[in-house]
Amino acid sequence: MGRRVGILTGGGDAPGLNAVIRAFTRRALFKLDWTVIGIEDSFDGLLDHPRRIRELDRDAVKGILALGGTILGTTNKGDPFAYHTDAGVQDVSGKVADAVREEGIEGLVVIGGDGTQKIGLRLMQEAGVPVIGVPKTIDNDLAGTDRTFGFQSAVDVATEAIDRLTTTAESHRRVMVLEVMGRDAGHIALHSGLSGGADVILLPELPYDAERVSKRIHRRHDKGRLFTIVVVAEGALPAEPDGRELTLSERKQRLKRGGGAASILISQLEGRIEAEMRAMVLGHLQRGGSPVPSDRLLAQRFGAHAATLVDEGRWGEMVCLRNGEILSVPLEEAAHTRFVDLNGDMVQLARSLDVELGG
Amino acid sequence: MGRRVGILTGGGDAPGLNAVIRAFTRRALFKLDWTVIGIEDSFDGLLDHPRRIRELDRDAVKGILALGGTILGTTNKGDPFAYHTDAGVQDVSGKVADAVREEGIEGLVVIGGDGTQKIGLRLMQEAGVPVIGVPKTIDNDLAGTDRTFGFQSAVDVATEAIDRLTTTAESHRRVMVLEVMGRDAGHIALHSGLSGGADVILLPELPYDAERVSKRIHRRHDKGRLFTIVVVAEGALPAEPDGRELTLSERKQRLKRGGGAASILISQLEGRIEAEMRAMVLGHLQRGGSPVPSDRLLAQRFGAHAATLVDEGRWGEMVCLRNGEILSVPLEEAAHTRFVDLNGDMVQLARSLDVELGG
Amino acid sequence: MGRRVGILTGGGDAPGLNAVIRAFTRRALFKLDWTVIGIEDSFDGLLDHPRRIRELDRDAVKGILALGGTILGTTNKGDPFAYHTDAGVQDVSGKVADAVREEGIEGLVVIGGDGTQKIGLRLMQEAGVPVIGVPKTIDNDLAGTDRTFGFQSAVDVATEAIDRLTTTAESHRRVMVLEVMGRDAGHIALHSGLSGGADVILLPELPYDAERVSKRIHRRHDKGRLFTIVVVAEGALPAEPDGRELTLSERKQRLKRGGGAASILISQLEGRIEAEMRAMVLGHLQRGGSPVPSDRLLAQRFGAHAATLVDEGRWGEMVCLRNGEILSVPLEEAAHTRFVDLNGDMVQLARSLDVELGG
Amino acid sequence: MGRRVGILTGGGDAPGLNAVIRAFTRRALFKLDWTVIGIEDSFDGLLDHPRRIRELDRDAVKGILALGGTILGTTNKGDPFAYHTDAGVQDVSGKVADAVREEGIEGLVVIGGDGTQKIGLRLMQEAGVPVIGVPKTIDNDLAGTDRTFGFQSAVDVATEAIDRLTTTAESHRRVMVLEVMGRDAGHIALHSGLSGGADVILLPELPYDAERVSKRIHRRHDKGRLFTIVVVAEGALPAEPDGRELTLSERKQRLKRGGGAASILISQLEGRIEAEMRAMVLGHLQRGGSPVPSDRLLAQRFGAHAATLVDEGRWGEMVCLRNGEILSVPLEEAAHTRFVDLNGDMVQLARSLDVELGG
Repeated sequence: MGRRVGILTGGGDAPGLNAVIRAFTRRALFKLDWTVIGIEDSFDGLLDHPRRIRELDRDAVKGILALGGTILGTTNKGDPFAYHTDAGVQDVSGKVADAVREEGIEGLVVIGGDGTQKIGLRLMQEAGVPVIGVPKTIDNDLAGTDRTFGFQSAVDVATEAIDRLTTTAESHRRVMVLEVMGRDAGHIALHSGLSGGADVILLPELPYDAERVSKRIHRRHDKGRLFTIVVVAEGALPAEPDGRELTLSERKQRLKRGGGAASILISQLEGRIEAEMRAMVLGHLQRGGSPVPSDRLLAQRFGAHAATLVDEGRWGEMVCLRNGEILSVPLEEAAHTRFVDLNGDMVQLARSLDVELGG
Repeated sequence: MGRRVGILTGGGDAPGLNAVIRAFTRRALFKLDWTVIGIEDSFDGLLDHPRRIRELDRDAVKGILALGGTILGTTNKGDPFAYHTDAGVQDVSGKVADAVREEGIEGLVVIGGDGTQKIGLRLMQEAGVPVIGVPKTIDNDLAGTDRTFGFQSAVDVATEAIDRLTTTAESHRRVMVLEVMGRDAGHIALHSGLSGGADVILLPELPYDAERVSKRIHRRHDKGRLFTIVVVAEGALPAEPDGRELTLSERKQRLKRGGGAASILISQLEGRIEAEMRAMVLGHLQRGGSPVPSDRLLAQRFGAHAATLVDEGRWGEMVCLRNGEILSVPLEEAAHTRFVDLNGDMVQLARSLDVELGG
Repeated sequence: MGRRVGILTGGGDAPGLNAVIRAFTRRALFKLDWTVIGIEDSFDGLLDHPRRIRELDRDAVKGILALGGTILGTTNKGDPFAYHTDAGVQDVSGKVADAVREEGIEGLVVIGGDGTQKIGLRLMQEAGVPVIGVPKTIDNDLAGTDRTFGFQSAVDVATEAIDRLTTTAESHRRVMVLEVMGRDAGHIALHSGLSGGADVILLPELPYDAERVSKRIHRRHDKGRLFTIVVVAEGALPAEPDGRELTLSERKQRLKRGGGAASILISQLEGRIEAEMRAMVLGHLQRGGSPVPSDRLLAQRFGAHAATLVDEGRWGEMVCLRNGEILSVPLEEAAHTRFVDLNGDMVQLARSLDVELGG
Repeated sequence: MGRRVGILTGGGDAPGLNAVIRAFTRRALFKLDWTVIGIEDSFDGLLDHPRRIRELDRDAVKGILALGGTILGTTNKGDPFAYHTDAGVQDVSGKVADAVREEGIEGLVVIGGDGTQKIGLRLMQEAGVPVIGVPKTIDNDLAGTDRTFGFQSAVDVATEAIDRLTTTAESHRRVMVLEVMGRDAGHIALHSGLSGGADVILLPELPYDAERVSKRIHRRHDKGRLFTIVVVAEGALPAEPDGRELTLSERKQRLKRGGGAASILISQLEGRIEAEMRAMVLGHLQRGGSPVPSDRLLAQRFGAHAATLVDEGRWGEMVCLRNGEILSVPLEEAAHTRFVDLNGDMVQLARSLDVELGG
């Protein structure tokens, strides 16, 4: 009789979560003879009465490899260290630990973003719950890993949107602004913009000069290109007149006040250009649906390696991809954000292809 | 030496325009030995100096069957009867007639929606320009024809969006509201909602009762369905408290003031339900990209039949689909809107499948 | 307490089977308060010991609208009137009738092609089992209905294949031969060929002259089109030298001996043209996967109407689509094949667009 | 006035060729002020009279990023060192060198597989033509680079095929055998098989034991999985009874004699299993069509870096991807094949997920 390990998904969903669950479970069941306990809705499944947990057998993970979302459910609320209860916000992390112990669960495989991984780390350090992390962020902005599953799926959705918008933009001689995910880091904007042949790509990491953008549109016009495709990350903002950097909360405020990055850009361009402009906010379309094959593969590699970490008792570590290899790092590293390197390969590529980055 | 016929596209673009142009041109060139003159940007190409027109030969229509947009360009401005010039709004329809005559063009094939077809009709009646119409509307709301090309492409994009949103809605136990095109008529909402298995579909033709919608969400919750997919046409509005019907301009005003149909619905549901809600406005994604095969086929049937109408000198008629056959109707019929029949097949189907229509 | 109705799927699978099952079941459960009994693997589920049948509740049809295949399983063996048993081929239709009676099933909804519908008709006439038919054929060749679900999905797969093959054919200056489904009727070849812009389309209904095909390839070459896309139905054959029509069994024999329609065409063209030729047999790809939205809609209309027929006690009828309306016909009509009308709209369109039909 | 550089594509086409051409040309034109000469049909464009070459300007590369195939055309014949002429096979490499010199071309950017790169290397070494290589192989089996563009596009097509075949296989309780590209190396089979959740994956690198495969099918059957998906690379063969390794020519012969890898597998399984089996050969579908976004990106990185190599005068080198970075290696390295590492990550993943590899 083998081990008994819990698995849960936390934070926003991403294509590939089910592929992680399936790979972990198949390896645990068929190769290691363990019992896998699926916990519903992040840590909530351990805190509710009755608990919402169930054993994952062969049939539970059948046919879910290509399925979007997560069969376990997820939430981006529910931090056990600051839990909303009828009696106010409380630290219920002890209850999580109790539940884990009472259910005979040796430890948890926690699939989630930086927020979820930080909770996992605290549960391990402060409540004694053994945790293995599997990184998840559509934005691909976790410093601990070169790549996360779900990212390429989002890039593909965004690129297909660019392909679609290009034909209508060209027919109407319009400026089309596509807002894609990426509040802090512009990886999706940069990858999809380059893959889709966007003329302008605006990133959170590089505050833009609206005058430069409008000049590009004019220059295109002069050369007979009467339409322009702009991809803007949801966190991209114009540079401050005095060049100073905004704080995170100032950025949030501006984005909210201006109605989002696409709206802000359009209001910045109004008066500078004559062409009709249209905006499209891609939003949740980027999260849903079947993961693309490369994400299914990466997710399975993550899931299978999580089983290796459990098998070797390496609690406190998080699976990661480094230079093409699946390895692990301390859970602490999940906390750091990986921004677009403004001197890196991708930005250089954009500049060498004459894509306008606005700054 | 054969005839010399002009062709243009007007109004918003729709997947399949190029398929019409290609079919008309191939038939005209290879079978009828005519000359086809492509006119750019609706009637603008005839009004600008120099005129923007060009002969369409075999190479001009190569590889465009599957291409979105229109190789001729289009605009939804530019009514020659109310043309914006430096000297103010003027009737320049005579200039169109002059241009047609001077270029030796026998008549025009006008591919466009109700607005463009009305212009075509007036050009024929008031300025003596022979016109054949080809109906185009993504919304499929032209009374003169059972179906227009581009509609199914839009439905497919919307259905794929529902598929994608379903996995993320289910994972997060959310209410997802997808706003699709259809300001006056809800055909896209109804077809995509049914094809995607939406739980609630709201149409411009049927003002909704937000209480009914929230009850459906509650009932689903009670049966363990913790998420709900709502498809709302961009012209769908709640019923007035007194049950009176809004005028067209009142409707426009409400939609604008409320930030669009999806926002209005969400504000109507706030307070009535506890579930998280998210909105997605599909917008221009529905217009762009390659036409689906059935639209390519319909567009080609339209294009080829337009050549038949020219060949038979049936100016003043518009191509249409009736009970599976390609026929023609007087251009006058383009003016009428085909609404969703609230007693028709599709609405009955929705009701029989227990889809909530809100009214 | 309502009725108790059985449902099964027979013959080759087609995208949309699950959409029929779901629509019938939802309507039966939510609107009519019936019990629906799903029968596995066509009639086999009633003949096996123990019987393989199960009640379909709300959860059983959750999430299956967009799912390819059939949740009930299917087989194209298993005719109860000529059943393969250990004791040889026997008529076990009486056992089907016994099982239906013993299970308290009022009648069967039989979703299947001409073979399955003929069995249904005999079961009704000879064994007294009430049957409602729902037509199914990817080939769209059932005379009783204008359209069957699954057909457009197959056309879309074939059209996408043409799109893909076109870029590689053009890059290599090749003749690409795509063999699509259609042993008796060429609807898929004609629709996909037209939708994909094929240069040559060969149908079972029109024996081709290889010389004409090679001339078309040469003519294209002379005009600078160095590649050619040929779509050939799996039942298309060259005309006999003496012009006589082959019998069905002769046709089968030729196709088998020649290694299939694509191979036969290529061997016919060898020696006549110099260009490299490549063949691709699309096969089962056309059956699998998620139904396209228009097929999901048609399938649901069929499924919901099947419930109407049961409700009205119209046993012995088969759902159909006629001029855009869902109606019904006697089961007897399922037996006839609907061929491509060589004088019909589609063939005329092909000719008017200068597509070579080989005859 | 800048440099004058030629560019050509050789060997089989792959999705992404146009993205390379576009990236190289944009960078050359907009950033480096060079002239780019496109050469048609690999080296043939330099050998024909008149030469088939043309300057690539901004318009020539407009809209080709997402286009499959190659705008320059390609051929996998035409080795200038063994050229088929009316006077027999000749070494015409001197003519290539003459053409390059006469056209004022400083050097050639050669996009192609191992065969084409070997020719490029010889042209440089023996005929004095400066050459920069850009690797291309759908099979991803070039030792010089971690990844080639086109590979992921092929994997995606194959994975989508697996998705489609799974629904029909399950409905009919069949064994579906999908043959994918990969004569020498099984990367496509392994990646698509893992991404699609295949039950059995057979590689050229690992001769299989048909008994093991049939046991897997039986074991699945015993557990209620009545269908099986097998992905077989086109070069996969059963192990020899005596365990010896076949020579390359023996392998070719067996594959040919047996009608291809899928047919051979099926004949090996006949008699061992009772389930119905069906085969599908994916063939040219894997080559054609629009490159997936990640391939468009990689191709652009390759194209832009090729310009860097020219700019720095690093003739004789080939662009490559190493650990996520775009670098270069000597052209000599293109000659080696990168096989699937039977002890590597991917094979381990397959084994840990309980995928049967047949050996």
